[in-house]
Amino acid sequence: MTAEIINIGDELLIGQVVNTNASWMGAELNKAGIQVKQITSIADEASDIRKALDQAKERVDIILFSGGLGPTKDDITKKTLAEYFNSEMVFHEPSLENVKRIFSVLNFEVTEVNRLQAMVPEKCSPLLNRTGTAPGMWFEQSGKVIVSMPGVPLEMKTLMSEEVIPRLQKHFRLEAIVHKTVMTTGMGESFLAEKIKDWEDNLPSHVKLAYLPQPGIVRLRLSAKGSDKEALENELDQLLRRLEQYIPKAIFGYCDCTLEEVVGKLLKEQGKTVSTAESCTGGYIAHLITSIAGSSAYFKGSVVSYANEVKIEQLGVLQETLENHGAVSEEVVKQMAAGVRERLHTDFSVAVSGIAGPDGGTEEKPVGTTWIAIAYEGGIKAKKFHFGPQRDRNIRRAALAALNMIRQELIQENYFAL
Amino acid sequence: MTAEIINIGDELLIGQVVNTNASWMGAELNKAGIQVKQITSIADEASDIRKALDQAKERVDIILFSGGLGPTKDDITKKTLAEYFNSEMVFHEPSLENVKRIFSVLNFEVTEVNRLQAMVPEKCSPLLNRTGTAPGMWFEQSGKVIVSMPGVPLEMKTLMSEEVIPRLQKHFRLEAIVHKTVMTTGMGESFLAEKIKDWEDNLPSHVKLAYLPQPGIVRLRLSAKGSDKEALENELDQLLRRLEQYIPKAIFGYCDCTLEEVVGKLLKEQGKTVSTAESCTGGYIAHLITSIAGSSAYFKGSVVSYANEVKIEQLGVLQETLENHGAVSEEVVKQMAAGVRERLHTDFSVAVSGIAGPDGGTEEKPVGTTWIAIAYEGGIKAKKFHFGPQRDRNIRRAALAALNMIRQELIQENYFAL
Repeated sequence: MTAEIINIGDELLIGQVVNTNASWMGAELNKAGIQVKQITSIADEASDIRKALDQAKERVDIILFSGGLGPTKDDITKKTLAEYFNSEMVFHEPSLENVKRIFSVLNFEVTEVNRLQAMVPEKCSPLLNRTGTAPGMWFEQSGKVIVSMPGVPLEMKTLMSEEVIPRLQKHFRLEAIVHKTVMTTGMGESFLAEKIKDWEDNLPSHVKLAYLPQPGIVRLRLSAKGSDKEALENELDQLLRRLEQYIPKAIFGYCDCTLEEVVGKLLKEQGKTVSTAESCTGGYIAHLITSIAGSSAYFKGSVVSYANEVKIEQLGVLQETLENHGAVSEEVVKQMAAGVRERLHTDFSVAVSGIAGPDGGTEEKPVGTTWIAIAYEGGIKAKKFHFGPQRDRNIRRAALAALNMIRQELIQENYFAL
Repeated sequence: MTAEIINIGDELLIGQVVNTNASWMGAELNKAGIQVKQITSIADEASDIRKALDQAKERVDIILFSGGLGPTKDDITKKTLAEYFNSEMVFHEPSLENVKRIFSVLNFEVTEVNRLQAMVPEKCSPLLNRTGTAPGMWFEQSGKVIVSMPGVPLEMKTLMSEEVIPRLQKHFRLEAIVHKTVMTTGMGESFLAEKIKDWEDNLPSHVKLAYLPQPGIVRLRLSAKGSDKEALENELDQLLRRLEQYIPKAIFGYCDCTLEEVVGKLLKEQGKTVSTAESCTGGYIAHLITSIAGSSAYFKGSVVSYANEVKIEQLGVLQETLENHGAVSEEVVKQMAAGVRERLHTDFSVAVSGIAGPDGGTEEKPVGTTWIAIAYEGGIKAKKFHFGPQRDRNIRRAALAALNMIRQELIQENYFAL
């Protein structure tokens, strides 16, 4: 089964907007077992839309449009498709009700322009758009399926997930596909691949593994195809349990989630608080933690100690420790962690001191050398990392490593509590 | 003059990579006065590449390929184009020298596979790729120009800026186009448009204005077309001087730059230091400041005081001020700014306290209500902002507003010094 994605909008062609819709749609179709042959971006022009549709029909079975369904003068897609399929326009009552519902929530009056959004070509099956006013449209012609969706990302995504993908699976009787996501941190892609080689080599042939790396994190996606969805789910769960034995410390979640979400959830569940003392990460760990709504329940604060005098005066690091060992050292980072934990009265604290670069590296301590310590009731631990030469990646990877050390400690605590 | 961008790569179709190359290329072509008619992403497949090229030739004058020029088995683009143009392969000596130079820097040996990268079809003009090993290729056929570039963003961008755009301008004798960028913050797009309406309405017809908004920042781009480049430059400079009179406080740079870069530069030039005291921004201002290499010259540190007890103990905020006025108040944010400036011994400090949301809002202080104060030798100022309901945007906009307050104060200082 093959598909083409056609994104309509002048803003894509002049580079004002990056086409994230296309990559999201491509990933969803791929997950559903549908091969994307081409992605095409064109202008809000009737002749271009017709031409693109003609050419796509020669290439693929499924054509998915997004964009050009707004209520303004750019609204050219619906009119063009109605003409293309020689179809009258009719009112779609559920979509009109939907428009009225949305406007009543916003306390706006429904104007004639808005009412017209509920009109669709007679020859399509309208797809109710519960997150916006423009309905999607599903056409069938000589065995091909042509779908038109709005370009607003939330509306397109909701329609794709709730309507388009399930209908495509039914229409083309696609095999069931089950996906499970595993989040890992602290290991690069190739190192991780080496570690789980035996497990990966023994995966059954109907199960595929994808490595999806981003700085500091590798997302693993396991996909299984078959007829019995429930059996596939169970099979993947068993495979994941086996995977965990290979990399128990690297996995931080079986979800599409961030490390700061997972750590936040653990802290909240266990009723613990945390603080940070940051040198090279410059407040980035605190920023990640506080990007989560409700983080005030477990995060008290942070001392960003970029200058040595701040390490001494605000965290109680000893001048002589700085002089004898340097700011990037096990001794200093431990004093930073102990200092912030004591002064901010938290259960846990984490401290980071490293050389983010591009300057400041030496032969003994090159750019990327980073010490991280965590302190907790009755203990303190530190670990040295080497993150490489790039400043922004160093900051990101150091912050993730720090969060992961807190996570590991929290999970261990949980074990003791059991 | 019309163009089509064709991006080659399986990773684009399965959504593993967002096609930022296409939007960057679209923006550059648009700036050069070339209209992009279509953007097409296809797989690393010879037949798909041939078909896409045939169809693009019917639509446009210029066809720009990126991707598929690596040394691995996916390297299909070059072979396909050589066959398409019935062309033998020949060695391009400057590209071979370039490969050798790059490998000697990396201390790697040049293998046969790498040597082959310097081969190009005889019928193209090779474009030397100084940031990578695969040369670009420029073909001409029946008045059309077809260019192939690597997909690695840095390599593509260097080739586009240094080779492709200048050659296109010369080949098609395009009019000169001059662009000037103005960075503004603190005003939404529509409010800004209202403020500069008179100026915009009086722009000469050969000068175009584009609004390029992002959260908290609106970038303005002024473009002028004509025959005399120098005269256009002077004309735009004069128009910008007039624009500054309409929005003197909102403009933070005449560059494609960030506010944290501009503030950092001013602090460095004036030999001043800064610290931050952050509640709702949770360390994000400190993170922005320290994302700039060399920021240790002017940034000493930060106290992230999420909990009230941290405001009291680490910043010296008075308990009774918190009780009488609440944490989000002029009084508290001023004490935070004064406290961090005194304790971290900096010339400037900035403090932020607000309700980031989604919870914590009241009728009197809805989500988005934010107080920002700056302290400096002999003075302290505070200002109230309303940023709206979205947590991530509140954090971002509050941080930008805080940086802009420091910038305004630094510029004023400069005035006094003159």
